[in-house]
Amino acid sequence: MNSIRVTVWNEFRHEKENETVKAIYPDGIHAAIAGFLGEQAFQVRTATLDEPEHGLSEAVLAETDVLIWWGHRAHGEVQDEIVGRVQERVLAGMGLVVLHSGHHSKIFRRLMGTSCSLRWREADERERIWLVNPAHPIAAGLPPYFEIPQAEMYGEHFDIPAPDELVFVSWFQGGEVFRSGCCFQRGHGKIFYFRPGHETYPIFYQAEVQQVIGNGVRWAAPTAGPAFAYGGGRAINMKEPLEPLG
Amino acid sequence: MNSIRVTVWNEFRHEKENETVKAIYPDGIHAAIAGFLGEQAFQVRTATLDEPEHGLSEAVLAETDVLIWWGHRAHGEVQDEIVGRVQERVLAGMGLVVLHSGHHSKIFRRLMGTSCSLRWREADERERIWLVNPAHPIAAGLPPYFEIPQAEMYGEHFDIPAPDELVFVSWFQGGEVFRSGCCFQRGHGKIFYFRPGHETYPIFYQAEVQQVIGNGVRWAAPTAGPAFAYGGGRAINMKEPLEPLG
Amino acid sequence: MNSIRVTVWNEFRHEKENETVKAIYPDGIHAAIAGFLGEQAFQVRTATLDEPEHGLSEAVLAETDVLIWWGHRAHGEVQDEIVGRVQERVLAGMGLVVLHSGHHSKIFRRLMGTSCSLRWREADERERIWLVNPAHPIAAGLPPYFEIPQAEMYGEHFDIPAPDELVFVSWFQGGEVFRSGCCFQRGHGKIFYFRPGHETYPIFYQAEVQQVIGNGVRWAAPTAGPAFAYGGGRAINMKEPLEPLG
Amino acid sequence: MNSIRVTVWNEFRHEKENETVKAIYPDGIHAAIAGFLGEQAFQVRTATLDEPEHGLSEAVLAETDVLIWWGHRAHGEVQDEIVGRVQERVLAGMGLVVLHSGHHSKIFRRLMGTSCSLRWREADERERIWLVNPAHPIAAGLPPYFEIPQAEMYGEHFDIPAPDELVFVSWFQGGEVFRSGCCFQRGHGKIFYFRPGHETYPIFYQAEVQQVIGNGVRWAAPTAGPAFAYGGGRAINMKEPLEPLG
Repeated sequence: MNSIRVTVWNEFRHEKENETVKAIYPDGIHAAIAGFLGEQAFQVRTATLDEPEHGLSEAVLAETDVLIWWGHRAHGEVQDEIVGRVQERVLAGMGLVVLHSGHHSKIFRRLMGTSCSLRWREADERERIWLVNPAHPIAAGLPPYFEIPQAEMYGEHFDIPAPDELVFVSWFQGGEVFRSGCCFQRGHGKIFYFRPGHETYPIFYQAEVQQVIGNGVRWAAPTAGPAFAYGGGRAINMKEPLEPLG
Repeated sequence: MNSIRVTVWNEFRHEKENETVKAIYPDGIHAAIAGFLGEQAFQVRTATLDEPEHGLSEAVLAETDVLIWWGHRAHGEVQDEIVGRVQERVLAGMGLVVLHSGHHSKIFRRLMGTSCSLRWREADERERIWLVNPAHPIAAGLPPYFEIPQAEMYGEHFDIPAPDELVFVSWFQGGEVFRSGCCFQRGHGKIFYFRPGHETYPIFYQAEVQQVIGNGVRWAAPTAGPAFAYGGGRAINMKEPLEPLG
Repeated sequence: MNSIRVTVWNEFRHEKENETVKAIYPDGIHAAIAGFLGEQAFQVRTATLDEPEHGLSEAVLAETDVLIWWGHRAHGEVQDEIVGRVQERVLAGMGLVVLHSGHHSKIFRRLMGTSCSLRWREADERERIWLVNPAHPIAAGLPPYFEIPQAEMYGEHFDIPAPDELVFVSWFQGGEVFRSGCCFQRGHGKIFYFRPGHETYPIFYQAEVQQVIGNGVRWAAPTAGPAFAYGGGRAINMKEPLEPLG
Repeated sequence: MNSIRVTVWNEFRHEKENETVKAIYPDGIHAAIAGFLGEQAFQVRTATLDEPEHGLSEAVLAETDVLIWWGHRAHGEVQDEIVGRVQERVLAGMGLVVLHSGHHSKIFRRLMGTSCSLRWREADERERIWLVNPAHPIAAGLPPYFEIPQAEMYGEHFDIPAPDELVFVSWFQGGEVFRSGCCFQRGHGKIFYFRPGHETYPIFYQAEVQQVIGNGVRWAAPTAGPAFAYGGGRAINMKEPLEPLG
């Protein structure tokens, strides 16, 4: 077992209410993701919207190196206080992997500062994901491109800040393109947005998708530099100059 | 007169309550900035915290191409609703120039997603601002470096996202460095953060500083591309594919 | 007439030897480009491979604000000395717009430091160019996307350094994507790579393409900051410290 | 022993001809660097200018994961053919760590495309290196800043492309600043430039410097993505479209 502690967060509503989704992810999307990450030897736990504090207590976050986020129709139900708590942890160094419809989650929009909106279509179309940076750590173990046989389309313009690193660009059968794998850093925290993952398709069972998410977790794990200096947002008064003045 | 419409926003508290500041900026920092921008032929108006809606009504923002922001001790008094309104306008294309202690303003932190915190010291020390991108439009008319004779120190680590473009880096007499001129884009809006400008020094009367702020306004002015597509944050459903499926 | 002086460089071989190309560009691709740029009020001249010094004498380059480059099958015939001369001018601030197969030109590869290679196919397929940064100056006057009815395909991975700014991404009918509009800065010079423009299609007569190239020229034109300090590559010895030592 | 194979290249001239340098690095700078990297459990070999093929045969490069480069007064003696060979290996994925005066080496200038020139001064002054990205892997194990007691000054403007990631910024006693730790990617190869290391100071014996160089090697080591596709610079003809045309 490696030392990276992952918490997989899922809204967990579709799987309880929609038969199609339930058939694909009977224990929830979080369980499917936790399953394959466990096989990749991460230390994995899960958390869902309807648990107390959405399963994201201070204690849970303190023991989380990388948080994975899947949400869709209930973004508005996530409490602002918990969003603030997650943001503070990301700034202090916790990694964050945001999947698919998580682009519109409160936490992702708050960390990006933009609408994170996009064009979309549900039409069972083919997606082909191209590596535009094949030497990035998140591309490890992948071929030059891979396909999602049936996908919901997400198209540009994707209203995000220019990513610090762009890893994937998607081609869609219906005529659109999309920046599908985007790396950001906010404070000490690394953030990876990965596009695929619609709840009505078995995308999280696909080998390449599992590889990417595992790579993303490894990439987003905290580094061993100096601790984040600005807990609570406070500035630091350096009263004594390091060099003589005057 | 050129066609760029600028609104200079100022907290306008120090100038009313502190004799030192009042002596330097008797009509307020906003008046000083509006003065030199007017001489650079921009169309300038001002707005301050204690006006209704902080002077930033929907109508005023709709007629603003670039907003300049100076605040310090009353960031907390800016209403969240107005901050949201300004953010929406920035995403739709309005430029934003954030000065000095505005790094901790609600609007800048919201657009950055980070604490925007830093190290600081008040010790009347010398600052030397180096151009690390002398070909950037914001460097127009400047020498390879210029000095602020007496400045408040701001030092790294500055907790911002990696700037899209880094224009200036400051040297401080007391031993620190700082990324002093930083360009960002959020939505369709261009954002320029410029470090100098402490209220107890006559920095906004200095020629190089006036040149930089004018350059920043020109750089941040809206461009003539397609309109921002996601007003209110809504995604766009592209029901009809552009290419035949199946 | 505006003040930007443009030199359009063309290899000018296909147009003399291939009837299809000759029919589309009877006076050469350079003449077509110079034509529409002249209508956009730039000051335009042309230069071609078979002129003395390839038409790029020191005098011509000294009077050029932005150089446009189109080459394809004779990259190897461009003299290294002239390539070095162009590179030196770019570092000193001249803009460079590289079109289509110019990706493999000596000057582009020398400024990028990479192979600038890619995947390609000639199959008369449709290209749809999406704006991934609709607020960039190069997107002025464009819709959210536009199409090239028949194009040669260029596909990822495109072996370039990560662009400083990514403006366009192309979708191709045959299944690939490509970073089609890429901005770089080298020294004081701004460089814009734009993908479309194959010699067997009338692409340079298309309105959107003409708009993009004009925008690219405006964006790449030199700025008014301090002069490039390192002519001939020489470092500068600052013998006297700016601050007292010891 | 970890699996990263490092080759430390040194010009190795100063150490043979200058008594001051010889006293500090009696076996050459390469031996000092190889020594501490060996203690960090890398597999290390060395190579120097006066060996056949400068010690950089095809075989040696094929067995090198990361190449470290130190040169100063004999950059011009490095054969262009060997520079081309190293460049090709970097594009194919070999990491490159360029130290101090290596900024003017042929290989660094060729990979950057710029003059890589700068301001400089030899005056035994103090340098303070600030972490502007404390969460970067290259910052692991470091404090918020560290000092070099006596250093040659390098000052801005440093004529490099905007780094993909900026890790360190230096403060100099004499009044300058410098981007001291810069990350780039070219092809599949990761490149780290690190400023300190003048031959007349015992800088490579300093713990923080050794930590940074070890971190740089780990960061620059090749990743496990798809192989570089463009050996020799050749493009790939994708004759068969991935999707049906027409």
